[in-house]
Amino acid sequence: MYNLTTPVELRRPALVHYGSGALAKLADWVAASGFKAPFVVADPINAVRLSLLGLGEVNCFGDVVPEPGSDNLEDAVSAAKGADVVIGFGGGSAMDLAKLVAVMVDQPVELSDISGANKAPARKVGLAQIPTTAGTGSEVGTRALVTDPETNSKVATESPYMLADIAIIDPDLTMTVPPHITAATGVDAMAHCVEAFTSKRSHPLIDDYALRGIQLVGRYLQRAVKNGNDAEARAGLSLAAFYGGICLGPVNTTAGHALSYPLGTQYKLPHGIANALIFPHVLAKNAEACAEQTAAIAQALGFRGGDSAEILAGATAFCKSLGLDMRLRAYGVKEDSLRAMAEEAHAIRRLLDWNPRELSVDDIEALYRQAY
Amino acid sequence: MYNLTTPVELRRPALVHYGSGALAKLADWVAASGFKAPFVVADPINAVRLSLLGLGEVNCFGDVVPEPGSDNLEDAVSAAKGADVVIGFGGGSAMDLAKLVAVMVDQPVELSDISGANKAPARKVGLAQIPTTAGTGSEVGTRALVTDPETNSKVATESPYMLADIAIIDPDLTMTVPPHITAATGVDAMAHCVEAFTSKRSHPLIDDYALRGIQLVGRYLQRAVKNGNDAEARAGLSLAAFYGGICLGPVNTTAGHALSYPLGTQYKLPHGIANALIFPHVLAKNAEACAEQTAAIAQALGFRGGDSAEILAGATAFCKSLGLDMRLRAYGVKEDSLRAMAEEAHAIRRLLDWNPRELSVDDIEALYRQAY
Repeated sequence: MYNLTTPVELRRPALVHYGSGALAKLADWVAASGFKAPFVVADPINAVRLSLLGLGEVNCFGDVVPEPGSDNLEDAVSAAKGADVVIGFGGGSAMDLAKLVAVMVDQPVELSDISGANKAPARKVGLAQIPTTAGTGSEVGTRALVTDPETNSKVATESPYMLADIAIIDPDLTMTVPPHITAATGVDAMAHCVEAFTSKRSHPLIDDYALRGIQLVGRYLQRAVKNGNDAEARAGLSLAAFYGGICLGPVNTTAGHALSYPLGTQYKLPHGIANALIFPHVLAKNAEACAEQTAAIAQALGFRGGDSAEILAGATAFCKSLGLDMRLRAYGVKEDSLRAMAEEAHAIRRLLDWNPRELSVDDIEALYRQAY
Repeated sequence: MYNLTTPVELRRPALVHYGSGALAKLADWVAASGFKAPFVVADPINAVRLSLLGLGEVNCFGDVVPEPGSDNLEDAVSAAKGADVVIGFGGGSAMDLAKLVAVMVDQPVELSDISGANKAPARKVGLAQIPTTAGTGSEVGTRALVTDPETNSKVATESPYMLADIAIIDPDLTMTVPPHITAATGVDAMAHCVEAFTSKRSHPLIDDYALRGIQLVGRYLQRAVKNGNDAEARAGLSLAAFYGGICLGPVNTTAGHALSYPLGTQYKLPHGIANALIFPHVLAKNAEACAEQTAAIAQALGFRGGDSAEILAGATAFCKSLGLDMRLRAYGVKEDSLRAMAEEAHAIRRLLDWNPRELSVDDIEALYRQAY
């Protein structure tokens, strides 16, 4: 945990339009920037509402799949030929693909050339990001995850050239998200904040975003799950997701995400659900190592702090109040795979090394078993 | 006072390096960006420590004066010919001139062509901003003020092209700022936050920066005035100035700054001192119109809230504790000029229209008289 003098690098699109109706700014920006050939990367749900973008007839790759693979990316890059601005329009998958399309379109590179850190070529086209869920915060980041179909593992690509020129965060776009996805994506946003807030490399400057994001989720997530048309609640969650995205850059996540990933790769659980299932167990396990932060999290989410067992009960009840079944077994996870999952999670050192306490493979297996 | 759903435009350099030692990132960034001809805009105090920038021999215009006029700007633009990146290195004056130099260098425009909003041509060179005081927050903004020598009034120029590519906020650079300038610039940063926080167009998203900035000034300004080498305090104030700059973009200041400007134009009072002299009087006058915000400000600065008289006493004591003489008369202001100053201030509608309460010329004159 760093102090206020510790250097920190803050990257964010130079221009962010936030708020109800902000989407109207897109067409102005495209016109003012002189772009003539916009190209939209969207999932099927958003591909049918392209008219909202106000760009008239617009080229679109509308087949983004959840947890997209490199084949999905290749198709999008091919379709983008000749574009001068790429627009991500959807959840994290669409925005992650848009980042990669923007640096790969009409450039002689493959994903394998640019995966890892700082290997992408300079972007030659514009990039706008428009989230339609309140979760990943991908709109403000420089990182994209794509699944390698051969190894079934997530390939991370990160580059400052993948940072958007503009992010438009219009909570009205999230109004139609159904309750269970609202719950899952909201927990994902919260998890980004919670894990950055409790990380061994947490930074006071980022802590402000993290705690504010957690408070917003505490205040608004139950409201938005109950009533999807609650405009204030939707706005609060879009802001929480934005802040979660800010946390990811300089600090990033820890054990919560590390333990969630195997649920995605092995059982195709949606990222937000996986996070929610793991969240109470990691929070409780870490509680002693970061007591002050854990107490602040409990207060922000509206449950009583205390010892590890009380934290576990409070955080589990919070997730259940969102309508989530909190047992791994309810999602088809097999008990005899827990050990292998624990080994997979334990190997994600880039996250686990920053967890406030050391977790062995046995510790992780015990957490999975507790969640089972 | 807007709510969480209200649209807001957030502009900030896409890359901000903050923290002790962050200055070392400048040379890396210049090299990685491929710039070959950097040009520094600095005041004389910083022109003698160019070696800190790590750029070797570097072209520099080192004659930035306080409250610079258009002649000072013209000299800087001429000296910049052939530059491919402009670096502002100093306080608000140096950074404001750097913004203008960056859009004017080697372009066929005069200040009169571009003053006002959105008239500057697209910038063809890079722009980096490095504050050496913790006050103006100019490093993150799109606005520059230059004095017209004929009318003696401030000419504002604003353009998204004047936003820096990178801001490097290294509190170590502020360590040598003497106590009275530390106090004045710290109050300026606080005033940006306080006025945005109490503005009629305050926004919850910006309020977070504003309140945090005020808290940082409350916690650290007295410490930094007392001991300039207090690294944590210097860092806190640099962050407060950054947050104040964020407040200026979408919300901006109100009566405090409007009433301060005549002290600058008529009596050449430094901007921070002028702000401090006015601050308690406007805060107290506005107290009823924004009681909740005023109470939060009092708490953040460490004095007791209450009625208008208590606010006035508390805020005045806060400023006095920084070593500031809080009487206008102590700075050579003439009593018989107060009416004319009130008329000048009252005419600054772009700020006064957002003050939480209406202030007549008589009201303003009474505030000056109270401060006299």
